[in-house]
Amino acid sequence: MAEPKENLQMEKIVSLCKRRGFVFQSSEIYGGINGFWDYGPLGAELKRNVKELWWHAMTRQRDDVAGLEATIIMSPKIWEASGHVATFSDPMIDCKTCKGRFRADQISEISCPQKPGKTVSECSGEKTEARPFNLMLQTYVGPIQSDENIAYLRPETAQAIFAQFKNVLETSRQKVPFGIAQVGKAFRNEVTPRNFIFRSREFEQMELEFFIKPDEVIEAIHGSVAKASEISNSQSEISEPQPNWGWEAWHKYWVEERVRFYEGIGLSRETLGFHHQTPAELAHYARACTDILFKFPFSKKDEHGNVTGDELEGIAARSDFDLSQHQRFSGKPMGVFDDELRAAWAKLPKEKQDDLWKRYYDNRKNYLTKSAKPDETAEQIQKQATEDANGLAKGQYIPHVIEPSAGVDRLILALIANAYSEITETDDKGKTETRVTMKFHPRVAPIKVGVLPLLKNKPELVKKAQEVRDLLRPWMNVFYDEAGSIGRRYARQDEAGTPFCLTIDFDTLGEKPELLDTVTIRYRDDGKQERLKISELRDWLLARVR
Amino acid sequence: MAEPKENLQMEKIVSLCKRRGFVFQSSEIYGGINGFWDYGPLGAELKRNVKELWWHAMTRQRDDVAGLEATIIMSPKIWEASGHVATFSDPMIDCKTCKGRFRADQISEISCPQKPGKTVSECSGEKTEARPFNLMLQTYVGPIQSDENIAYLRPETAQAIFAQFKNVLETSRQKVPFGIAQVGKAFRNEVTPRNFIFRSREFEQMELEFFIKPDEVIEAIHGSVAKASEISNSQSEISEPQPNWGWEAWHKYWVEERVRFYEGIGLSRETLGFHHQTPAELAHYARACTDILFKFPFSKKDEHGNVTGDELEGIAARSDFDLSQHQRFSGKPMGVFDDELRAAWAKLPKEKQDDLWKRYYDNRKNYLTKSAKPDETAEQIQKQATEDANGLAKGQYIPHVIEPSAGVDRLILALIANAYSEITETDDKGKTETRVTMKFHPRVAPIKVGVLPLLKNKPELVKKAQEVRDLLRPWMNVFYDEAGSIGRRYARQDEAGTPFCLTIDFDTLGEKPELLDTVTIRYRDDGKQERLKISELRDWLLARVR
Repeated sequence: MAEPKENLQMEKIVSLCKRRGFVFQSSEIYGGINGFWDYGPLGAELKRNVKELWWHAMTRQRDDVAGLEATIIMSPKIWEASGHVATFSDPMIDCKTCKGRFRADQISEISCPQKPGKTVSECSGEKTEARPFNLMLQTYVGPIQSDENIAYLRPETAQAIFAQFKNVLETSRQKVPFGIAQVGKAFRNEVTPRNFIFRSREFEQMELEFFIKPDEVIEAIHGSVAKASEISNSQSEISEPQPNWGWEAWHKYWVEERVRFYEGIGLSRETLGFHHQTPAELAHYARACTDILFKFPFSKKDEHGNVTGDELEGIAARSDFDLSQHQRFSGKPMGVFDDELRAAWAKLPKEKQDDLWKRYYDNRKNYLTKSAKPDETAEQIQKQATEDANGLAKGQYIPHVIEPSAGVDRLILALIANAYSEITETDDKGKTETRVTMKFHPRVAPIKVGVLPLLKNKPELVKKAQEVRDLLRPWMNVFYDEAGSIGRRYARQDEAGTPFCLTIDFDTLGEKPELLDTVTIRYRDDGKQERLKISELRDWLLARVR
Repeated sequence: MAEPKENLQMEKIVSLCKRRGFVFQSSEIYGGINGFWDYGPLGAELKRNVKELWWHAMTRQRDDVAGLEATIIMSPKIWEASGHVATFSDPMIDCKTCKGRFRADQISEISCPQKPGKTVSECSGEKTEARPFNLMLQTYVGPIQSDENIAYLRPETAQAIFAQFKNVLETSRQKVPFGIAQVGKAFRNEVTPRNFIFRSREFEQMELEFFIKPDEVIEAIHGSVAKASEISNSQSEISEPQPNWGWEAWHKYWVEERVRFYEGIGLSRETLGFHHQTPAELAHYARACTDILFKFPFSKKDEHGNVTGDELEGIAARSDFDLSQHQRFSGKPMGVFDDELRAAWAKLPKEKQDDLWKRYYDNRKNYLTKSAKPDETAEQIQKQATEDANGLAKGQYIPHVIEPSAGVDRLILALIANAYSEITETDDKGKTETRVTMKFHPRVAPIKVGVLPLLKNKPELVKKAQEVRDLLRPWMNVFYDEAGSIGRRYARQDEAGTPFCLTIDFDTLGEKPELLDTVTIRYRDDGKQERLKISELRDWLLARVR
């Protein structure tokens, strides 16, 4: 399986990943399977760390987010409600000559499988019109392969969160605004998987759906909605969420929170970019979407010669589209009841009520019209929108949602690309060697610390080193290594991205009495060394690797 | 979707799971999907804890195991090599009258969908012969739904480990004996999913493949193989692995290690059972398999009236079957080279060499014969077995494997069933109330500590409580709760299984000066309370919840 080598840097990264066990081609001994990648020992640890840090930041560190772990296969009705059955497709063109199937928007880039040097659009093969090709992987659940047993592998994790919104609300003692977080696999039958693990067919997502009150509800309760410009999201400061925040403020907040997450694991702001989707790019129900980009080695330059980057995460303001769709398709109410709204509404002057009612009505009517099923009449839609708007007086509404949706695998690739660093040294015999150091942030580094006895054949050094290993191991991932020269062992840990190495030597055993029970700690990034007491090691390291 | 209610205890557990957000039916708002279950906020935390503890015990706490995270969809050739395409099936019978499809071994248990009160075997409908029905979920990868694009959702995680054996060996600096561990989803198109999350169609596994030297190699190097009876695996002691261990010792070791794991998360030996598979039950390549059972509420009694339990985990000695199969199907060598063997072999007397050669040859011939492809001749098999046995002198062999393979979801159900505890109290007004306490081991408990200000309307109590929350939160999952009476808040945490609650009261603020900056800690299981210093809380809790 040939992976297109966009440039030398990507080639080096792919090679390092295989050589050190970060990423292997899935099913490699059988020639691989296009668009699927396995994580080896170091990659699996790196990925676990990233997912754990996200989960920690998004759920455990907050009072206002609950977790969820839903199945990959769900009722196919979910994908009808979400629109994926109808519209999650790429237009494809078949070539009647070579029998190939190609993405319509890529035929002038893809090489013709039969005519060397020509693209699919240049070859003389007779082609069909473009037809939609659904990207969901399909299977059958149950003993009979019939239409009613069709099921899909989820193409995103988000929909399970919407489908379980009411169950989580009722069992978690959360109130809007609050979020539901989920990490898990998703599948897309990409026609052209590419850029290594950036775009694969099986991938993992980390998604938060953060449910908020509609702006009309905020205005009814608090008199006005905080302007987004009042919200601080400078690098030095981030506003605490306030009760009068509407969707713009929450959207701005989550973009900033997510950027800080990336900074906190070693992706500085200089490595990131932003793309604010234009009205033409936005889905009809979305109010805004900001993509956080990373400047990958394969990222293209814009017309000014600047690399803007490729998407790590999108933060979308999705209005009340998702819950509304599931309410309509399932027939189950997805709205919430809000005491504060009911109390506030009763005290509003009539004109204010009418104004808010009308704006809420217009939004609902707009949604209902754009999402109407073929058999729905304008009259039915007006009736439903009226009913929805009448709910405000009773304290009822359908929450809106802000969705920070991140791809795990592309983040792993960003971390690897960001960490990759080479130095070329020529020794006194004129021999040139290039060494790779993976400068991972200690929080994500697969191995936190290497523990190395100076010599393998001195039992007292080995014993002491194993004691240090056992002391630290309950708290972090430790790699114990006694094979080879100390320099080679450092180099191996540098390539694995281990931020710290500890050497146990004769001074540790008390050869210099004042150094008894101390070890040498060596820093990966600059090779600097210092002496630390064994008794202080755990806390010293925990302060740096967590 | 009706879940068969095997008994009252299961009903109570299922009800608690839904009520407190441990487990929800997947796609519930759409009527569910049979055999799929979602984990709610508490369930997701419980499951994360279990997987993290397994991963920690199996990889990070050991020098001799490396991790892997492979894809769910792999090359279909993997499932040809493993035998799943040919034989991973249940015999099914179709009824031509009602068009139903039923497991042949269950027709005398399953009710006929059309004749009330009759089983499928009793009804008069005309039935087909039993035919094999493959349990792998099938899909197509790539733009065209053709035979060459068929792929399967993995029915187990193990095969990816075998397929990546060489890549991991070459990149992780491990040597046999060593293991590869993986946690991940698997799918089986069960005809009759049942017993809640015990047998579902989408589930998660925690599998270790531990690769060892064949007994003939141990004997060549060490002169003899340790007898399993020499290996201590009493409750109080477990032997350290030794170089002269053969498959029996390693098998015994891993059974004991796994039992200790279960004990360490709260499943005492009394709740477990064992089943040693009989020769008739074993797969042809397996030498032994010990199942660790848990006594579930739905577990049946044996003929002596004893509950033996249902399977949590199987620990199988699988010989060299798996790597051998992948070697033959992929054409890629799966053997290892062992310096020590080559050196030892050269020093063996001729008779010893001949003896070991012959035994290794017989084993290989036996495997090759039983697994032969239709076109393989006896001559080819003898030639291959000879070549394999000749490898010994060069230090080459195919590792054997011990496989501890555990199901995550059934372990979660075991932990929930084990933790479930009720007390019924009658108050002085004669009102009877039944309260549930989930007595999870602190290591697996979804929430480690509840932090409760005595009163919600005293800002100084709230502020102090939030400080305590923020102090602990980086280290464990904390639930902050200020709503309702303190008794009700304790009860809510008891039902969630939170082992400790901290109450911040006026003494914390110094009303009794000697109690300044102390909190009340309350134990879930006996309601006992004591006073602890805030400065000592973190370490006190970490010592109990990790």
